[in-house]
Order: sequence, then C-alpha cells, then structure tokens
Amino acid sequence: MEILKQRILREGRILPGDILKVDSFLNHQIDTALMNEIGREFHRLFADEKITKILTIEASGITVAYATAQYFNNCPVLFAKKGAAANMGPDVYHAPVHSYTHNQDVEVFVSRSYLNDSDRVLIIDDFLANGKALSALVSVVREAGAQLAGCGVIVEKAYQPGGKLIRDQGIRLESLAKIASMDPESGITFEE
Amino acid sequence: MEILKQRILREGRILPGDILKVDSFLNHQIDTALMNEIGREFHRLFADEKITKILTIEASGITVAYATAQYFNNCPVLFAKKGAAANMGPDVYHAPVHSYTHNQDVEVFVSRSYLNDSDRVLIIDDFLANGKALSALVSVVREAGAQLAGCGVIVEKAYQPGGKLIRDQGIRLESLAKIASMDPESGITFEE
Repeated sequence: MEILKQRILREGRILPGDILKVDSFLNHQIDTALMNEIGREFHRLFADEKITKILTIEASGITVAYATAQYFNNCPVLFAKKGAAANMGPDVYHAPVHSYTHNQDVEVFVSRSYLNDSDRVLIIDDFLANGKALSALVSVVREAGAQLAGCGVIVEKAYQPGGKLIRDQGIRLESLAKIASMDPESGITFEE
Repeated sequence: MEILKQRILREGRILPGDILKVDSFLNHQIDTALMNEIGREFHRLFADEKITKILTIEASGITVAYATAQYFNNCPVLFAKKGAAANMGPDVYHAPVHSYTHNQDVEVFVSRSYLNDSDRVLIIDDFLANGKALSALVSVVREAGAQLAGCGVIVEKAYQPGGKLIRDQGIRLESLAKIASMDPESGITFEE
C-alpha cells in the first residue's frame, strides 16, 4: 500500500530495540483518513471471502479491525483479551502468547459465545514481528471450529520469523507494508 | 440514545463489584453498526464546536473516538498512553490517574508534538464512573493550552461521582446512556 509506505518512510522513527515508532499516525495519534483507507484495502484484498467476523487482539489491533469491519457490511469485531480475564467466566477459548512489552507469558481469551463453527473469520492486527499474537488468534479460530479466511496486518517486519510462521501453515497472510530491513543508520527498506 | 439504552437493558449483565458487562456489543465483541451510530450521535451533539482533535485514553476509548472522528471530517484521534511510556521521550504532557483494574496509580502521557494551543478538543471515552480518567485528560488539555469543547462518554454511571466532578468544572459533558441505578436484583434504570 503505497501511501502507507511513504508515510512510514517520512514519519517513522527507528528506536533502539528494533522499535518502529509511528506515533504521528498509528500508535499515539491516529490519522483517521489513512486508517479508513487501510480498512478499505483489507476489504479489497478479502472482498470475496464471505467474512462473518473480524478477530483481533487488544489493544492496538482494535481500531484497524473496526475500520476494516465497516467495509464488510459492518460485520462484528471480536477482540481477544489478554491476561487474567476475571469476569469472562469459564466458557472461553484461550491460547498462550508471549508479551514482549511486559516480558511475560500471558493467555488470550475469547468467549465461546461470540465465535463458533458457523463463522468465517478474518484476523486483523497492526504489527507482525515474531507472530506470537497472530498464532494465538489462529489457535482460537481453530479451537472454535470456525473457518479462517486469512490474516491481514498493517506492518510486517519481514526480517522477523512471524510471516513465515503463519504462511508455512498454509494461511493466507496479507501485509500492507513489508519491511525488509530497518536500521537507525540506513533507514527502512520495503519488500516488493 | 434510545437504541443504546435498549441494548444495555437487553444484553447488559451486572456482575459483583458494580461491573456492567456489555461484552456482546462493546467490551469484547463490538457491534460495528452501533458504534458507528454512537459516533454519529456525538457528532450531532458537538457538530458546531469546530473540533480539531479527539482525545481519548487507551485502550477501550480508542474505538469510539475513531468512530466519532470519522464524522468530524476525519479529524485526528489522539490517545493518551498509560504507565511508563518508555519510548515517548521527555516531551510529554502527563497527569496521574488511578487504575481500578490494576488497583494502582499510573501516569497518562500525551506527546507535546500532537496537542497544542491551536487545538479545539473533544474528549471521548466509553465509560464514566469516578471520573479519574476524564479528569486526567482534561488536565492534559489544559496543560497544552488547548480549548476544551467538551466530553462525551457512551455510558455514565450517574450514581458515581465522575459526572458531577466534570460538570462542576463548567465542562460540557454528554453521556449517551446515564445509568441511575444498577443492581443484580432489580436491574438497570436510566436517568431521563
């Protein structure tokens, strides 16, 4: 997605620890018009997939999932919750995920009430690096017996293992910007 | 907002600890069409206010802020970050807020890059109870020297002190559903 890549090149800042800071339009301030275009693009890519539900993970995936759902006839968004979801009750799907932000293993939870074998699911998230979050969501979809149409992420760090991890399972994965390399000195390059 | 109140009455569940669980359409699964109508309603209420930016707080406020911003000519959404925002740098506005979820005091941060005295701000959040989160956002707007057009929340627990706390400062506060009382036995009543 060319306007996204240009925006990343222009405003992204690379911080120590392999962090891409895109606070001006994604991670702190949200460019609403751009987010809308991102949703439109995911719809263009998965338009024929008869999606009934969009699944994401709190917190940063929710906005892009919502923006995307608007283009799929306002289908519901379902966001997995992280950690001890005290008030969710026992009737949940769950899968482990490692939180790099807090450097600990947590569980993600999805209530069985909102996902079942009649659903055809599109998984949406903002960033893909090691693939742990997407893998947990894929696991939840499988546990629910739902069909998985594919995954869409805004930014994939293609030099990290997450993309291969997902694609090697035969899952369709669409990334709107695939970063081939990222370095404070030499900047950002994208895969074609 | 009548459709919202009806939905709360029909699907809301009251849990011990004064928790209103609306997982079927707001807090876990999101009814995208309803969220869109909520955004439209906030626009109707604040349409004449020449809003330049919508301010909210991570995580649960972001979706409704985004839904609302779409009706304000896609104005930017800015979400305050909670806790130690390690990579935000020193150039931030900040204010204390008590997290009831984690039972601790945290700071909320907003980068000075994205809010200043040329902004006219609408603060949006999903729930208002004790008013700590809204108060922190109000404090950030003031520190930035920006104009505050008002606050909008989806659900106000009107029997808790937050609403009065905000309105007593002369701030316009619009709540789409004002809960007058809530009890597992007798159910939910709304203020007119």
